[in-house]
Amino acid sequence: MAFGWIDEQAQARRRAGLVRILRPRPADSPLLDLASNDYLGLARHPEVTEGAVRAARTWGGGATGSRLVTGTTELHAELEHELAAHCGFEAALVFSSGYAANLAAVTALAPHGSLVVSDAGNHASLIDGCRLARGTTQVVAHADPDAVRKALATHDGPAVTVSDTVFSVDGDAAPLAGLAEACREHGAGLVVDDAHGLGVLGDGGRGAPHAAGLAGADDVVVTVTLSKSLGSQGGAVLGPARVIDHLVNAARTFIFDTGLAPAAAGAALAALILLRREPERAARAREVAAELHARLTALGLSAVRPDAAVVSVRAPSPEGAVRWAADCRAAGLSVGCFRPPSVPDGVSRLRLTARADLSGEQIERAVRVIGETRP
Amino acid sequence: MAFGWIDEQAQARRRAGLVRILRPRPADSPLLDLASNDYLGLARHPEVTEGAVRAARTWGGGATGSRLVTGTTELHAELEHELAAHCGFEAALVFSSGYAANLAAVTALAPHGSLVVSDAGNHASLIDGCRLARGTTQVVAHADPDAVRKALATHDGPAVTVSDTVFSVDGDAAPLAGLAEACREHGAGLVVDDAHGLGVLGDGGRGAPHAAGLAGADDVVVTVTLSKSLGSQGGAVLGPARVIDHLVNAARTFIFDTGLAPAAAGAALAALILLRREPERAARAREVAAELHARLTALGLSAVRPDAAVVSVRAPSPEGAVRWAADCRAAGLSVGCFRPPSVPDGVSRLRLTARADLSGEQIERAVRVIGETRP
Ligand SMILES: Cc1ncc(COP(=O)(O)O)c(C=O)c1O
Ligand SMILES: Cc1ncc(COP(=O)(O)O)c(C=O)c1O
Repeated sequence: MAFGWIDEQAQARRRAGLVRILRPRPADSPLLDLASNDYLGLARHPEVTEGAVRAARTWGGGATGSRLVTGTTELHAELEHELAAHCGFEAALVFSSGYAANLAAVTALAPHGSLVVSDAGNHASLIDGCRLARGTTQVVAHADPDAVRKALATHDGPAVTVSDTVFSVDGDAAPLAGLAEACREHGAGLVVDDAHGLGVLGDGGRGAPHAAGLAGADDVVVTVTLSKSLGSQGGAVLGPARVIDHLVNAARTFIFDTGLAPAAAGAALAALILLRREPERAARAREVAAELHARLTALGLSAVRPDAAVVSVRAPSPEGAVRWAADCRAAGLSVGCFRPPSVPDGVSRLRLTARADLSGEQIERAVRVIGETRP
Repeated sequence: MAFGWIDEQAQARRRAGLVRILRPRPADSPLLDLASNDYLGLARHPEVTEGAVRAARTWGGGATGSRLVTGTTELHAELEHELAAHCGFEAALVFSSGYAANLAAVTALAPHGSLVVSDAGNHASLIDGCRLARGTTQVVAHADPDAVRKALATHDGPAVTVSDTVFSVDGDAAPLAGLAEACREHGAGLVVDDAHGLGVLGDGGRGAPHAAGLAGADDVVVTVTLSKSLGSQGGAVLGPARVIDHLVNAARTFIFDTGLAPAAAGAALAALILLRREPERAARAREVAAELHARLTALGLSAVRPDAAVVSVRAPSPEGAVRWAADCRAAGLSVGCFRPPSVPDGVSRLRLTARADLSGEQIERAVRVIGETRP
C-alpha cells in the first residue's frame, strides 16, 4: 500500500520514545515561557502587534505574489533599508522565513564548481542549503577556523564558508573573527546565520557580525530571521549590494515564493524601531542568560556557558529530558526539550531562553523549578 | 576576490536583457491588478485583514518558536481543522509557506531507496523537494499518465508521483484522475500541489483533488498555499492523519522552522470562512478566466485555454514580453511577465490573473490595453 512504510517508522519511534506531538497553546497560557525564541520579549509588545495591525489594514492580508511580480510593497523596501542600516550592511533582502533566506544565500553563493565549507553544528536550513547547492560541500569540525583553513586549501575556484553565529542547540558562539581570517587567506566568502545573534549580540543588538567587526565587509554575507528577537516571521539576507542583486536574480526561494505577509513585515519593522530606541534590551538578554547559567551550575547542573541568550542544560537521556520538561510544565514552567534527531550529537537537553523581559522573581522561580524537577 | 564571479554573471544577464529589479508598490496603486495571485480578490477584503488584526492582537506578532516547541497556538489547530474539512481530507499541517510545505511533503515521503516521479513542468519548490529527498527522482513528460506508469514500472519499493494540479506558468491542469490510476496500479502515492487550484477549482473552491474525486483518499497527499486564493501567507499539507503525523516527526521544514505568524493564520482562516459562506467566488474566477481567454484569442493572440484562473499569453521574445508588460503598465494595467529562467520551456509570456472580483468594465479595459500594446 502507498505510504505503508510510514507505519513501520512510526512504530520504531514509539518504541524509542521519540514520538513528537503538537500541543496547541491558548492565548492566555499561565506558563512561564523559557522555551520560545522571543529573546527580547517583543512578540506580544503592543508596538509590535500594532505594527502588524497597521500593515494588514494598509497593505492587506498577503503580499499577493512573488517579490518580483506584485509582492514587493514600499513596506518591504523600508524594512530592508532599516535592517541593513541596523546591522551595518549595504543592502538587505527579506524572505518569507529565515529558512528560506538560508536556502537562498547558500544555493545562490555556491555555484557549480565551488566549495562550501560547512560547520558540523550548523542549522538544518544551512545544511539543506548545502544539499541543494550545485557546489560541493565539505563538513568541518565545529567552531574550528583551522579546519576551515585546511578545507579551503584543498580547493581552487569560488568558495564560501557557512556557519551559524550562535548555535541553536547549545547557544555557543562561532569564532567569527577566526573564520573571517581563514576565509580571507583563501579569497573565500563567509556566510553566517545570525538567527540567534540579531537583537542579542553586538552593540544594541546589531548582531554577532557587527560585534566581530565584520559588518559591511565586502566578503561577508549575513542571514537573519525576523521570528526570534524581532517577534515576527520572516528572514533576510544582508550584504554587499551586488550580492543582494545576485540573490534577486538567482535565488529560487526568493523568485518562486510569495513575498512576506505585510503584517509580518510591519511587526518586524516595529520591533526594529523599538530596539533602536531601547538598545539596552540586548544587553539585558545576555545578563539574564549569564544569571540563569550561574544559578543552574551552582545547583550542580551541567549547563553550557551561554554566549548569547540560549542556555542549554544536559539531560541524562531522551526519556529523562522529556520527563524533566513535563515536570517543569506541571510546575508552571515551559522549557524547550531537544533530543534526537534534532540534536547533532545525540545528547538530549533542556533548552532555556533568557528573555530580556524576565523579572528577577521569574528567574528565581525558573531556577527553582528546574532544580526541583531534575531527574 | 570573494564573490567576484557574481559580477560576470551580472554582466551576462545585462547583455541578455534578463536583469530583474524590484519595484516597490504603494498601498494605493492606481494600476488594475492582473498580475497577483489574489484569485478571489480577498487579500484586501476587510474580513480577511481584520482576521489578521485580531490574531496579531490576541496571539502576538510571531509564533515565537518551532511548531513543536511554542509555535503551535490554538489558532493554528483551528486553521488546520478548517483546511482539512474544506478540502475533504482527514488532517492538515500548516507551514510558514507553500514552498516549505512542498519541501516537507516531498522529502518526508521519498525516503532512501524510493522513487519520485516528477512532472517536467513542476514548480520550483517541488523540484527542490525532489533534489533534497533521499529517494531517486525520475522526471517524466508533462501531464502524461502513461509516462508516469512507465517510470513506476521500473521501480521496486516505495514510490510517489509528484505534480502541480494547475501549472503556474501556463495555467493548464494536470490529468489528476489518470495520474491517480497510474499510481494505484503500482501501489504508489500521489502528491499534488494545489497552490493554484484551492479556492478556484472544485465545488466551492475545494480544490482540484476534490474535483477529481481524490479528496480523502488514503494514497493522496495535497499541498496548498495560503498566499494565493486565501490572500495571506503560509502553506499546508493535507492528507491521511498517519501521513500528517509522519510529517510532524520527519519533515525538516516543519521541525526546524518557526511556526506561521498568527496574523497570517488568522487572515487565511477568515478567508476560508468567507469562501465557505460565498462559494460562488470560485466559479466566478473560472468564468473571468474563460472570458479573458475568449476575448484575447478573438484578437488573434495566442493564449492557453485556462483550466483555472491563470491565463497565459505568448510573447515573441523575452525583450518583447518585457516591453509589452511595461506598455501595459504605462496604460494602467499590471500583468505578470514570465521569461527565462522562470519558464521551463524558454517561451516568454504575459501571465494574467482572472480575479473573481474583476468587473465587466475592468475585464474589457484589460483586454483593450493588452491588445493595443501587443508587440
Ligand atoms: C540557526 C537558525 N537558523 C535559521 C532558522 C530558521 O528561521 P525561521 O524559523 O525564521 O525560518 C532557525 C530557527 O528557526 C535557526 O535556529
Ligand atoms: C505551484 C506553486 N507551488 C508552490 C508555490 C509556493 O507557495 P508560497 O508562495 O506560499 O511559498 C507557488 C508560488 O508561490 C506555486 O506557484
